[in-house]
Order: sequence, then structure tokens, then C-alpha cells
Amino acid sequence: MRRLATLGLCSLFITSAAHADEGMWLFNDFPAERLSREHGFSPSAEWLEHVRLSSVRLAQGCSGSFVSKTGLVMTNHHCVQACVEQISTKEKNYVERGFLAKSSAEERQCPALEVNQLVAITDVTEAVHKATEGLSGEKYVEARTAETSKLEKACATSDERRCDVVSLYSGQRYHLYEYRRFQDVRLVFAPEIDIAFFGGDPDNFNFPRFNLDVAFLRVWQKGQPSRVDHHFAWSTAGAKRGELVFVSGHPGSTSRLKSIAELAYQRDVALPERLIQLSELRGVLTEFSRRGPEQARTAKTPLFYIENAVKALRGRHQALVDQMFMSQLETTEAALRSAVASDPALDQKYGGAWEHIARAQDRLRTIRKDLAAKEQHRGFGSQLLRIAIGLVRYGDERQKPNEARLPEYGDAKLPALKAQLFSPAPIYPELEITMMTFALTKLQEELGPDDPFVRLVLDKRSPQGRAKELIKASKLADVGLRKKLFEGGAPAVEAAKDPMLALARLIDAEARKIRKVYEDEVESVVQKNNELIAQARFDVYGTSTYPDATFTLRLSFGTVQGFPHRGERVGAFTRIKGLYARATGEAPFALPLSWRRAKDRLTMNTPMNFVSNNDIIGGNSGSPIINKDGEIVGVVFDGNIYSLGGEFGFDGSTNRAVSVHSSAIIEALDKVYGARGLVKELRR
Amino acid sequence: MRRLATLGLCSLFITSAAHADEGMWLFNDFPAERLSREHGFSPSAEWLEHVRLSSVRLAQGCSGSFVSKTGLVMTNHHCVQACVEQISTKEKNYVERGFLAKSSAEERQCPALEVNQLVAITDVTEAVHKATEGLSGEKYVEARTAETSKLEKACATSDERRCDVVSLYSGQRYHLYEYRRFQDVRLVFAPEIDIAFFGGDPDNFNFPRFNLDVAFLRVWQKGQPSRVDHHFAWSTAGAKRGELVFVSGHPGSTSRLKSIAELAYQRDVALPERLIQLSELRGVLTEFSRRGPEQARTAKTPLFYIENAVKALRGRHQALVDQMFMSQLETTEAALRSAVASDPALDQKYGGAWEHIARAQDRLRTIRKDLAAKEQHRGFGSQLLRIAIGLVRYGDERQKPNEARLPEYGDAKLPALKAQLFSPAPIYPELEITMMTFALTKLQEELGPDDPFVRLVLDKRSPQGRAKELIKASKLADVGLRKKLFEGGAPAVEAAKDPMLALARLIDAEARKIRKVYEDEVESVVQKNNELIAQARFDVYGTSTYPDATFTLRLSFGTVQGFPHRGERVGAFTRIKGLYARATGEAPFALPLSWRRAKDRLTMNTPMNFVSNNDIIGGNSGSPIINKDGEIVGVVFDGNIYSLGGEFGFDGSTNRAVSVHSSAIIEALDKVYGARGLVKELRR
Repeated sequence: MRRLATLGLCSLFITSAAHADEGMWLFNDFPAERLSREHGFSPSAEWLEHVRLSSVRLAQGCSGSFVSKTGLVMTNHHCVQACVEQISTKEKNYVERGFLAKSSAEERQCPALEVNQLVAITDVTEAVHKATEGLSGEKYVEARTAETSKLEKACATSDERRCDVVSLYSGQRYHLYEYRRFQDVRLVFAPEIDIAFFGGDPDNFNFPRFNLDVAFLRVWQKGQPSRVDHHFAWSTAGAKRGELVFVSGHPGSTSRLKSIAELAYQRDVALPERLIQLSELRGVLTEFSRRGPEQARTAKTPLFYIENAVKALRGRHQALVDQMFMSQLETTEAALRSAVASDPALDQKYGGAWEHIARAQDRLRTIRKDLAAKEQHRGFGSQLLRIAIGLVRYGDERQKPNEARLPEYGDAKLPALKAQLFSPAPIYPELEITMMTFALTKLQEELGPDDPFVRLVLDKRSPQGRAKELIKASKLADVGLRKKLFEGGAPAVEAAKDPMLALARLIDAEARKIRKVYEDEVESVVQKNNELIAQARFDVYGTSTYPDATFTLRLSFGTVQGFPHRGERVGAFTRIKGLYARATGEAPFALPLSWRRAKDRLTMNTPMNFVSNNDIIGGNSGSPIINKDGEIVGVVFDGNIYSLGGEFGFDGSTNRAVSVHSSAIIEALDKVYGARGLVKELRR
Repeated sequence: MRRLATLGLCSLFITSAAHADEGMWLFNDFPAERLSREHGFSPSAEWLEHVRLSSVRLAQGCSGSFVSKTGLVMTNHHCVQACVEQISTKEKNYVERGFLAKSSAEERQCPALEVNQLVAITDVTEAVHKATEGLSGEKYVEARTAETSKLEKACATSDERRCDVVSLYSGQRYHLYEYRRFQDVRLVFAPEIDIAFFGGDPDNFNFPRFNLDVAFLRVWQKGQPSRVDHHFAWSTAGAKRGELVFVSGHPGSTSRLKSIAELAYQRDVALPERLIQLSELRGVLTEFSRRGPEQARTAKTPLFYIENAVKALRGRHQALVDQMFMSQLETTEAALRSAVASDPALDQKYGGAWEHIARAQDRLRTIRKDLAAKEQHRGFGSQLLRIAIGLVRYGDERQKPNEARLPEYGDAKLPALKAQLFSPAPIYPELEITMMTFALTKLQEELGPDDPFVRLVLDKRSPQGRAKELIKASKLADVGLRKKLFEGGAPAVEAAKDPMLALARLIDAEARKIRKVYEDEVESVVQKNNELIAQARFDVYGTSTYPDATFTLRLSFGTVQGFPHRGERVGAFTRIKGLYARATGEAPFALPLSWRRAKDRLTMNTPMNFVSNNDIIGGNSGSPIINKDGEIVGVVFDGNIYSLGGEFGFDGSTNRAVSVHSSAIIEALDKVYGARGLVKELRR
């Protein structure tokens, strides 16, 4: 079976010839020699540094790149769609009509966006391992949190620095990532959603594709466009068939090193339950959008994310219920277990790890509903409640020493916390009520109407009645008030008498209790034992490979090439003429006016989108795709349907990254949008 | 693990003492001796006949009972809810306000309801086996269809007879069921939905419960209430703790004898996919209901069915992903396989059956999306299209000899077909558009926008655009027109130029093609080999047991008793006082005005609902629950949460049927609704 040519690490080294181009490689551990052997190109340390510093992360969950020395950032439209919606109003809907700043004065601030540039990576494995040595359970979690908080705090010397200790190879390595933060991020260009997301959900994760899923931002500092030391140049020709290309971006997470017990939990419990709930919410929001244009506008972004998630999670579920796929994963695990079992020293150290993880998954099965209902509910669908929970918890946590706090309230995380709590992004009460009604209905359904926590939350009201009364009475939409409460801490929060704050306070003890059970009896057990398994893997197979994705910068290489699908070969490129051929005039296959008008001016043979076998995953959206000379040849925006199994294993024969071709970007900016200034800036 | 005390048949005989009361027994093969041994009661042939003839089936999918000699039928409110909605109008919403006919003149006809009374059962195994001997695949299906059509036609001598050949024990036995049909069914009494379904979805499949989920119908003939020869008397005391009780009803289907390969397909593919799609539709209809009271009224019934289905299917999925549960099923199958393998004669006959079924499931995995999209779509959510498909196909099928037709168009099935096609139940265009838009969106999503069938159906429109144009232009809401087209056959259908008929015609060839692939390569292979496995089971373990449920009349025995739940014992009864304690005033825990007003008149200690360990499943809704004397002690309306695993195996220690107590019915009719006439008729 092709798609299983590679599953995880072990097989990689056993039959490496068959798995060319797998890998989300660390910048500080890049397999330059292997690349040279397989593709005849060996990047220098300078090349790697330049690529790293020209790449950026959108803190909210995407990738991007600097594409001019004056801080121009390229990413996907779908990565900035929330911003475009937030700067829109009932009268001016930039999601529909697109946005172009004709001068820097017209660039509009994106309230919730932050851009991070990775300036340094330090190996801190020794410090963390030393701090946690010999500990387990609760003590282990506390010691690790204390050490990582300490390291992060020492690194984050100003509000312009963000520092994260990242656990790699299931805790075998800990690296400290130091970012430069750009908090004033402005929108420069976003096309109309009808061309950015042409084909909509039906075409999502499919290819051929015809999307202009690109947007430009600019980072500002002190009221001026920032000058940046590194940025990518623009390729004149763009991506060519068979060309070696690199994706430098932030893959969010993969599960390629997870144990079978964890995957079985995903397959049997987590994925089906999440899919059922997300699908229902999708139905609610689809129909909510039909209430009117304003509802359609405000629900568009959440609905997009939900539809995207449903498709991605279904792809993962399908991979895990594929009996061939799963049995290969089982074989891989069995091989390692048997290698461990056959060596008494290894067996002594690692032999019990898998069973411990399996027992922790059993525990998770019994607490999952309480955990989801009490702690992982993300404000029961309400942004106001999420803010309230942040304010209540921060008020309590700030009274503790840094090392003893919940990690997300540690000093080093304060900038991120503030960005969330003080986001001036508009909150739409009608949408809030709909989302919260849904979440409270599910709460009641999952735990049952007689559950004490459900009674506490609902306070004898129906889910809808409760959602309405809370959202109408809360004053937390006021950012100024939030700042005051943040500064004032627990007494100010107490005195505010806001019903959302009251609810956040009411549920806090139960939420912390179940979180602690989860951390002590599930999370820490799994982490600790996965650490052992990772170590066993190093002992048995050697060390030079890549870790599972962690939403940190990785470099992947591959070539521009099509793929086989249902017995036919899908070509690597689509062209602008194909876009016009596919347009039916009805959403999601309707072209915006600008494109209908520009038809005669466009070079129809210009490549529009293309695929390459780079190993990417969610989080890579907006990543630059570059050639050997470090020039932009496109921007990654999706994977094909086979890429969804990439969560668990990479198959270079079918798994494809989907990108907007650099030539289509120039062609559109120039001939559809008349954005001469932007074209000039990119080509400079 | 308690819930696995019994799984299917084999284990039943190995450790029968532990599994008292399992079984959905055939009336013509009832284990009277076993009942006598275990419960000290041995029903006579007359007793069984009286119970059978006093029991009825609602052809649309429920059970019921005759409870007076003038044709009064008792069933559940949720079984007649569609009728209550259909006789309602914007002005008079009987779903909300309830319905009581004060005289027979006020009884209202239920347009889509039909009542069937089982008058005879004949064993026709020999004839069917002879007709199919030595055949397989397509030939097997054709031969079986021809033989059963012939038998059914010979039996159904008038429009007042319905005859079905029923396959039992996976085709080991074929019985011919002969029903008397009552097509003029009128509504006598239905309470307000707020009391019928008090607690709504949160309480559904749970206990304690406080529902008055009962309704009364009456069968009429020639403009008069029918006189019936058999009916159940009413118990004065009602159900008592520990009492032996019987449920006589029509369990819809179970999968207790299915092979592991089939269950794996359900667990991995069918159930998750169905749940994801149903959940999204649930969200759509929930939000659709918020458009206004008329939308809420028209969507109430479909929404109820969807919510009910989601809960039931989730319960099944949870049973199958329970590793203990599944491994016991695997052990049961392995035991039979190994018994077969160890005997060369058995191995020769049956050894390959499991593998053939597994290969058929693999085939099903590859064709399932096409099958669902092209043939099993049930009119893409549109009743008008379902009617159109029925008219187009009947027009074609009637030109063939009876034996060569698709079974649902055989002569013996014509009454049922007509009941469906000529149903005067209102069709609501706004709801139709919403349902069809959803289904067409999913069609596009599942097969992709480039699929030729999708292009054929959508005709270059968006799902919503297409649904609107079809539903607005179709004239098939007119029952008179349907009758004309039915009589006129293919030429009339062709000449009608109705867009729904045109669409039905357009997709018919593709639909038949994929259906044939399914029947030849999946269905017939599975049936044939399950027949072999059933035979092997008889050979190895003996024969006296019950077959999987088939929506035909079964008798189950058990006792009134509570059950253990999360470490506590749930009592067998709830009482009217508990209903008032649980009422919060907000839906779904709001009492209707009639009950708020009647509070002081009611005897608070009257039993409201109760549980018993009878082995039931969906389709049993509305079944009479009777005592040894054949008297009504309640009406079954639900199972507890543990009953959902009953699809695959019965655990008498936790699986419970939930019934409305007979005393609550009398108390409510008398003191809440002032329905003296009805009370008198029941007690007569």
C-alpha cells in the first residue's frame, strides 16, 4: 500500500530510499548531507539562517514570511480573514469586497494579530531533565512547569520578546525558542473571499484548485513600517515542474510518534465525539447565516474554521479506521516493543511504558466528559466568558510565585494573555448567544440535567435563556473595563459584579479540580512514558531524525509534482484559464466582479495553484515556498485529500502541499487589483 | 463486566442462568417451558393467540395494542406526533395544546397512518430454499425476490391484506406474515408535547423519567369505528415491583448475529458517517426552528426523530468501541469459527463464510459513497422528490412481470406504495428547501463538485438555488395529480413535465446501476454467507433460540425492577409528585397549563413511569406491557441508556425498558383532561 511507505521514524531508516522528502526538520538539526545526496543541494548555515529570519509565525496559528525590507508580510487570506471581518462593518464588508491600502496611511490595524520572528534557539534539555529527574505524576508536572517558567522568564526580557520552552521528541529534547514580537500588525491587501476561497468547502483539501488564498500584512513599530534585516526575494519564474522547493513554516502538530493506545483513543472516542459536536455546530451556524447578511458576515469566519476542521478531522479518522494503515502502525510499534523486550537492560528501562500509557487512556475515557465540560469548554462558546475566566484566573494566579502558576499565567506568557484579553476585536451578541446556547445545550446533554455542575451553570434556566441573560448583562465587551479589572486583580474582579465574572468564579474550583486529575493521572503519565519510548527509539534506531510537529519553525523539502488519484494522474499546475472554465456564477464557484472585469487583461496560461510533495500539516498555512536561491515561488495554503493522513504518517507518493503560484499573485495584483505599489515592493 | 453477561445466542446456552429474560421471541416458537421453569408461568396457546391478535403494528414504524372492542388503539405520543402535526395548522397547534375528541365525530383522520394486525404466520422456508438452491450473487437475489413476491402476491388477496415474507435467523427460516390492514386511522387523544416528552432530549434514553408518552387512535371501517375480536383488558393495579410482565411488540432490528466484519464496518464507517451527517442536519433544523413559530412547528417532528436517532446511534457506536464489549463479541465468533474449523465436514460447508463477508464489507467501503449518494438518499431530503421517484419507478416497473420488479414495487407492496405516494400529509416548502439544500450540499461534498452525477443533479446551480427552483416549480404537492400519474403510468409521468419527475428520471439509471452492484456484490454475498453461519450455529449449538429483530411481532418477558447506575441503585418507579418537583418552568422542563392547573386534583403518589428488564429495541415504541392475565399495566416508550447496546447484545442487569404506568394514564385522562368517556371505554 503506497500511502504507508513511511510511518514514523523507524521505518524511515530501515528503507530510506523509498521515503524521499518526508520530514519536518528542525533548523538547528537540518539533514543537509541527506539533501545533498538526494537532491544535489546542500544549504549553507547562512542560507538556513536567512530563511529562518525571513520566516514568521502568526501567533494565532499560521505561518508567513517577510517579503520586503519594510516589513511586508505574506500569508494566506484565510489566516487574516478574522481581521478582515473585524475591520469590516455592516456597510463596508471587506471580506466580500476585498481590501487594498493604496498608501501606508490606509493600512488598517489587525486587532488580534501578532507576528513572531524566531531569532534564537537554545538547547535547554539538560536543565529540564535535571529538574524533573526521578519525579513522576503531580511532582513531575510541577517541577517541569517551574523549570520551564524560570527559563522562559529569564529569556523574555521585554514585552518585545516571547520565549517558549518547546518539548521535542516527546520530551527527549527541550529547546528554548526566542521570538521577536511585532504587535502592531496592519492589513495591506486581502482579495475578495470569493477568489481567495473559490470553490469553498467542496474544493477544500482537493486539487485541482484555483484559489488566490494570499494576503499581505505589514509589521509596524513606533508608528512606522518596521525595517527588517531579512526577507525573501521574489522569483521571476516561479515554481517549475520537478523543481526542488522548500517550505519554511510552523506545522501545528502531528501524532507520528504516538502509541497505538493513544491513537485508538483518538479513533474510537476523541475524533468521533468532536466530529459529531462540530458538525452540529456547523449546521447551526450555516442556518444562522441565513438569518440575514449581517449574520452571514459575522458567522463567516467561525464557520470557515469549523468546516475546515470537520474535513481535517474526518480525514484523520478515516486514516485511523483504515485497517491497512492501522495495522502498519501496529507493526511499527510491535517491532520497537519486541526490540526492547529482547534486551533485558532496555526492557528494565522502557518495557512498561506502553502499558502505562494504555492505562492512562482508560482513565481518560472515564474523565473525558467531565474534563471537556468543566475545563476544556473554552467559555461555552462565549468569548465574553473566556475573557471572564482569564480575568478571574489571572487575578488568583498573580498572587502566586511565577513557578507555581498555571503555565498560561506565567510571567513569560503575559503578553499572549494580554493580547487575548485586550483584543479590541468586536464581539457580536447575537452570534455569542447562538454559540453559547449551543454549548450549554451540549453541556446538559453530555453530563445530563441532574449533574450538579450542569445545575450550577444553568441556574435553573434553559440553555438559551441562560445564554441570553448572561450575554445581555455582561459589560466585558468594553476593553477598557477589562484592562481595569486586569490591573485591579482579584478584588476588582470581585467588586465588578459582572454576571460572566460571577459564572467564571462559580465554576473555577470544579474546573481546576478536574484539570488536576487530568494532568496528574493522564497527561503527565503519557508524557513521561512517551519520553521513555522516545528514548528507547533513540537507543534502538539512532537519533538523526525529526520530531513531531509543535507549531515551531520547520523546514521541509520536496519537488513540484502531481499525484495519482482514482487511477489517474493529477497534474502539478492549474492555470488562470481553468479558473474561468470552472466558474458557474453561483457560490462558491462565483467570481468576484474584479475578476470578471479583468478577464481580457489576464494572461490565461499563468500558473494559478500547484502541488509539491513537501511534508506539511495544519499551521503551515501561509508558509513561503521557496527555491534553492531562497526566492518565493508561491505560498502554501492547503494540502490535498491524502495529506490528511499526514497526521499519523507521510506518504510522499500521494501527500501533497497546495500553493498559490507566485506568478498568479503578481498577475492578480497587477492586472486585477491595480496594486502597482505592492508589485514594485515585492520585486524590489 | 456486567453488560456482557450475554452476547448473542451462543453464550446464551453456555451460561443461561445468568441471562434470564433475554430474548425477542417468536409467537410461533415461544419458550413456554423455559418461562415456566424460570418464572412459574406457562402461557397457553390461547393466551398467546389472544396477545398476538390484541397487538398491532403501526406500518410507519411503531407498535401498539387494541384496548377496546370498538377499535381503540393505544400507542406512544411520539408514534403519532407526525399525525398531530399534520392535522395542526398555524392557528391550531395540537402538538402544543394536545388533542381530545369528545365524540367519535371529532376523531380526526391521520393521513399517513396505517394499523396492521398479525392474523397468521406460515413457515415458507422450504419453498424459498428450494427456489434459491445452489444459486449465488445476482441469480440468488433474483430467484429469492421472485419466490417471495409470488408467495406474497398469492397471500395478499385484497387491499385489506398485507403479506410479507420475513427472513429469520439470517435466512435460515422464512415465515410468511399475514396482516389485516386498517387504513382509516383516526386520532382520539394526544396530550401536549410538553408532558408527552417532558425533559426532551436531555432526558431521552434516561431514567428517572416523567413522560405521558401515550396516545390513542381508533381504527375505522366503512365510516364507523371497527369492532375487533381481541383487545387487552386494563389492569386495575397496574405494574407492581417484581411482577412478571410481557412486552408484545415489533422490535425493528438488531445485529446480535452479525459477523465481526460487519460490526467493524458499522463501528468504523457507517455509524460515524451517519452521526456526522445527522448531527449537522440537527444543527440546521434547530436553528431553522428559531426562524419563527411556524418553522418550529413544522420542524418539530423531523427534529425529534433526528435527535432520537443521534442518541441511539451514539449509544451503538459507544458499545462497539468499548474494547471489552467488542473483544467478547470477537471471542464468541472465534469460538464458532474454531468449532467449524475442527470438523472437516462443517469446515467444508461453512469455513469460508466469514472471509466472504469480510471481502463484501471491503467492497462496500469502496462503493458506499456512490450508493448513498445515488440510491439511498431518500429524495435528497425532499418528500416531493421521493414521491417523484416512486411515480417514475412504478411507471417503469409495472410494465414488468411481478417477479422481475424491484421488490418494493411488487404487487403485494402496492398498498404500502400507495399509502406513501397518496399521503395527504402537508408538505412544507420552506422546510423542504432547507432539507434539500442540506442534502444537495452533502452530495456535492461527498462526491466532489466534479463528479458527473453531482453535475447532473445540480445542473450548474448551487445546492440552495437548485433546491429552491425544484421545489417552487413542482406540482407534486397535489395528491390528485399524483393519483393521475400513478394510474397513467410512464407516458403520463413523461408528459407531466414536472421538474421533480424530470430529476427522478435523470438520476434513475445511475441509481439502479449502483443498487445492482450493491445487491450483487455486497448484500447477496452477506446474506448468503450469514445464512451459512446461521446454519453452522444451529449445527454446533442447537436451534431453540430467537432470531434477530425484523420489525415483526415478538414477545419478551421480564420483571419490573430498577438497575444499578454509577454505583447507585435507580428505583423502578417514578411518581407524579416527582414530575412536579422536576418542573422548572423552562422548556423542556416546563409543564403544560393543564398539568399546572390539575395539580391539586391529582394523587401525587400515583406511579408515573417504570422500568423492567424486558428485551426491547427501537420499533417497540408503543408496545403494550401486560401482566400474566393479559391486562395492560403500561405502555413502553423508551429504553434506558444501557439499552442502546442492546443492538448487539442484551445485559439483563442494566438494560431496561421504560414504560408509562397504566395508573398514570387513567389519572391523567380522568383528572387532567376530563376524558371520562375514554376512561370508561378502557375500563370496560
